[in-house]
Amino acid sequence: MNALTCYIDKQYLPLANAGVPATDLLVQRGYGIFDYLRVANNKPLFLEDHLDRFYNSATIMRLGIAETREDIVKIVYQLIERNNLPYSGIRLIIGGGDSADGYQITAPRLLVLQQPLTAPPEAMPLKGIKLASYEFQRQLWEVKTTDYLMAIWLQPWMKAQKAEDILYHQAGIVRECPRSNFFMIKDGTLITPASHMLKGITRKNIISIALANNIKIEERDIALTELKTAQEAFISSSTKRITPVSQIDDYILPVINEQSLSFKIFELLREKELH
Amino acid sequence: MNALTCYIDKQYLPLANAGVPATDLLVQRGYGIFDYLRVANNKPLFLEDHLDRFYNSATIMRLGIAETREDIVKIVYQLIERNNLPYSGIRLIIGGGDSADGYQITAPRLLVLQQPLTAPPEAMPLKGIKLASYEFQRQLWEVKTTDYLMAIWLQPWMKAQKAEDILYHQAGIVRECPRSNFFMIKDGTLITPASHMLKGITRKNIISIALANNIKIEERDIALTELKTAQEAFISSSTKRITPVSQIDDYILPVINEQSLSFKIFELLREKELH
Repeated sequence: MNALTCYIDKQYLPLANAGVPATDLLVQRGYGIFDYLRVANNKPLFLEDHLDRFYNSATIMRLGIAETREDIVKIVYQLIERNNLPYSGIRLIIGGGDSADGYQITAPRLLVLQQPLTAPPEAMPLKGIKLASYEFQRQLWEVKTTDYLMAIWLQPWMKAQKAEDILYHQAGIVRECPRSNFFMIKDGTLITPASHMLKGITRKNIISIALANNIKIEERDIALTELKTAQEAFISSSTKRITPVSQIDDYILPVINEQSLSFKIFELLREKELH
Repeated sequence: MNALTCYIDKQYLPLANAGVPATDLLVQRGYGIFDYLRVANNKPLFLEDHLDRFYNSATIMRLGIAETREDIVKIVYQLIERNNLPYSGIRLIIGGGDSADGYQITAPRLLVLQQPLTAPPEAMPLKGIKLASYEFQRQLWEVKTTDYLMAIWLQPWMKAQKAEDILYHQAGIVRECPRSNFFMIKDGTLITPASHMLKGITRKNIISIALANNIKIEERDIALTELKTAQEAFISSSTKRITPVSQIDDYILPVINEQSLSFKIFELLREKELH
């Protein structure tokens, strides 16, 4: 894996030689943002959406990216050409740059890494995962920061709950999973949180698919207590498209099949990737 | 500054060549801890206390440090010898290590950096700083994580308040400043928050000084509304010892002088460093 080429601080380097200086705020103060997109058949999926979000995160965090949008597009295609990983993930990262006082943002360094990734299945798996709810509100929730302290720290707790992922809530209002958005389906209506979470690109695609296919969609608060009324639920992410949820804490959801709405949305997402 | 020697991943290297691999969870997920101690006259101050806290942070974060405590002591003295910076700061950092899945903690890398630092003044300055209160609770508050997202992000807001530091509170209960602990003095009693903040080494020294000198001390919740009853207030940190506070939001504290209790505590702290 370390023979792969990455882009760091205006150079193409083998991943094994790519280090972020110990003086960068990314290292010393965890001050950084990223974005992550999937490559399928050597095509970067929804690149423009990811770049929109990356530059938006950078603006909120006051990180001036030296590279233009066109530069980043070129870098992404350079890595795809050099690394020959038709199914993979590309990670864009920038931090606060070298800081003499350990606090002042200076010249952010752009890193672009390409790494292998298993392609999602052709059809949605019918076996769902269990989510365990946990009270936590991500700081700077509208920004895709590199802050996954709580997510990683909670892994043993999650396993002790025999869960495969964590569902963050704040005072009983559902927010998101650490790396995915949450959706539930009730009486044919898709419902997803509206605020206080990171708005995923797959979430955005699902909403536009719903609008284009006359599937009712509500962006609004979901109380933990409302989850028990869900007929279907799933989480969405760039890497997996959608993953069905079969259990949330003690509540076991109805069994789904190929006729379920989740299954149909997965199909529509897969088709959207081809265009 | 980049000609300085640092220790990274079991090697002594010039700081300019010291990079943290882009695959380390410290870079990708902000999963890391650190500790920071002051060196005065080539002597690392309160090294044992800092090591206690560093290993405690590592245990809570499940970061297995390959280096023993004795190893780290040797590294600290090696850097002091090699860099010849009699007045400086030493930063110990470890992150989650290289992670194939970007989530699993592997073999943490230890970094030890020494950087120049202005020594604190011989006596406490009588001119205090203004604090601006902000509602925020640090996640994993008992751990000295590398997470300073909010602290750095708030810098322009803080300047707009014409403040020199931020006082975090949660639902009106005072917690800490981003890099310091908070104390207030009322009727000769020192009062400092008891929980939900990082317990500083200087805070610990102040408490032990108070106990040894018959200064009444209370570790308990302080409501924002109680701040208006403070006759003195200060913040404590390893780099500055104590810095007096002259204003918190709209409340202007009484003027202090060489007879003030804060001034005396600064003196006692300075003496404690010599032993």
